[in-house]
Amino acid sequence: MTAQVEIIVVGNEILQGDVLDTNSHWLCGQLTGLGAVVRQVTQVRDECPAIAEALRLALRRGNSLIILTGGLGPTADDLTLEAVAQALGVPLKEHPQALAWVADTYRHLAEEGRVPSAEMTPQRAKMAHLPAGCEPLFNAVGAAPGVLCRLAGQAIVCLPGVPAELKSIYQEALLPLMAEWLGPGAFVEWEAMVTCNDESVLAPLLKRVVGAHPEVYIKSRARAFGESHGRFTITLSAQGATRAEAEARVRSAWEDLRAVLGQAGLNASLSIPPSGPQGA
Amino acid sequence: MTAQVEIIVVGNEILQGDVLDTNSHWLCGQLTGLGAVVRQVTQVRDECPAIAEALRLALRRGNSLIILTGGLGPTADDLTLEAVAQALGVPLKEHPQALAWVADTYRHLAEEGRVPSAEMTPQRAKMAHLPAGCEPLFNAVGAAPGVLCRLAGQAIVCLPGVPAELKSIYQEALLPLMAEWLGPGAFVEWEAMVTCNDESVLAPLLKRVVGAHPEVYIKSRARAFGESHGRFTITLSAQGATRAEAEARVRSAWEDLRAVLGQAGLNASLSIPPSGPQGA
Repeated sequence: MTAQVEIIVVGNEILQGDVLDTNSHWLCGQLTGLGAVVRQVTQVRDECPAIAEALRLALRRGNSLIILTGGLGPTADDLTLEAVAQALGVPLKEHPQALAWVADTYRHLAEEGRVPSAEMTPQRAKMAHLPAGCEPLFNAVGAAPGVLCRLAGQAIVCLPGVPAELKSIYQEALLPLMAEWLGPGAFVEWEAMVTCNDESVLAPLLKRVVGAHPEVYIKSRARAFGESHGRFTITLSAQGATRAEAEARVRSAWEDLRAVLGQAGLNASLSIPPSGPQGA
Repeated sequence: MTAQVEIIVVGNEILQGDVLDTNSHWLCGQLTGLGAVVRQVTQVRDECPAIAEALRLALRRGNSLIILTGGLGPTADDLTLEAVAQALGVPLKEHPQALAWVADTYRHLAEEGRVPSAEMTPQRAKMAHLPAGCEPLFNAVGAAPGVLCRLAGQAIVCLPGVPAELKSIYQEALLPLMAEWLGPGAFVEWEAMVTCNDESVLAPLLKRVVGAHPEVYIKSRARAFGESHGRFTITLSAQGATRAEAEARVRSAWEDLRAVLGQAGLNASLSIPPSGPQGA
């Protein structure tokens, strides 16, 4: 059973087109690589009801893991933790470990002369007020700790929107926990190039192979007509309990695909060939 | 009353982290510039139930306009129109104008030797099967027409996922209709730089100005500590029925902000200054 994940991205700057959300793209690649299926990414504004509703829906869809990004900072429009608390029906509560980390961060910054004082202001303390029952995740790059809420069979993780902080917490604090949430699993993707001018010619051929390999996701990448230069990219990807299982599924579909395309006079070759010990 | 918009992005390649979704980012900038508020962007997989459910929820949230991107092509995993038909409870129906456009595209491509034949295959005809009651939008760049569904007080628009096709249909076919859906409106955004090391020092100052200008969105852009170099970016943005109204709102908030920061000994200046006839 493949673990399902959703990502909720918080920030008006995304929905105003000021900032391109690269965080969810990076997380999608990481989670897919671990064998999980990312079912949905939802970008919402800095508004408590919108964030809480997106989280409620994601919980109801039964995801094993829901990651929220952004809205953990000290300003009044950083509302993610308040919204998580609302969605879970718990109050915000000062967390001693989180407070100690925030205090530590500002002590170091003040010593280095990078902030004027180490004083624990209400704005700084806000970052240590977590939904009751949640635990903080150490942020080695910035002030706001990440937050982990363990529910029955589901986990919610909140990460800062600053990409360097998000990646740091993901790699240091989350990665070791992923196997627990996502189970054993692997993802394998191969990419093939087909010499063909027209996706509508490929479509019925792909359909035959898709039908014979329901566990493999086969996709031809659409291009504007002027841009395909007579070649199409086809990706074949599969999840499996192990890397060998996922790879066997992709290999079997690829062999069928190459045969079907060959019968139609089309030439296909792997452009991202499998390499290393598990390679072809 | 500001028009509210949502965007639904369809494609496994996005959720697998293979492709960075730049379409919604581009659309968010365009729509914000027209005075609309983009409330949510939802990225879903190439699955009918997921697409249809995202659309149903977006309709229920009362948006004036919902734009779907991707999934209009000829292959079996291009499911957007089937999902829209499901969500609206109507069948798919061959649309004569859409079919003529698709036929035209392949006739030209065949004449130029870029596809082997102009034959109307089922895969090509699929792109002309629209949810009953919808109309096609001319695609000058690729084969799949865009699709427009006019409901009572709401509009649904489907655009191809290929960025060049999406932008072409948006600019040629949609822009002239936008005033009808979004109403008159303008958006103005100014950007200021503040010399300050620490967002948690800015937070209470911003809060005072935010409270006095509820119609202006004021946001400090978070940076990792090492990256702010002692300066913070603050954006002030507002919608208005006219450009002059939006600009007056932003100007008033900016003047207050500069005063409040000045009293705290912080220096702020506009880094994206308003220019031209409406400028300061």
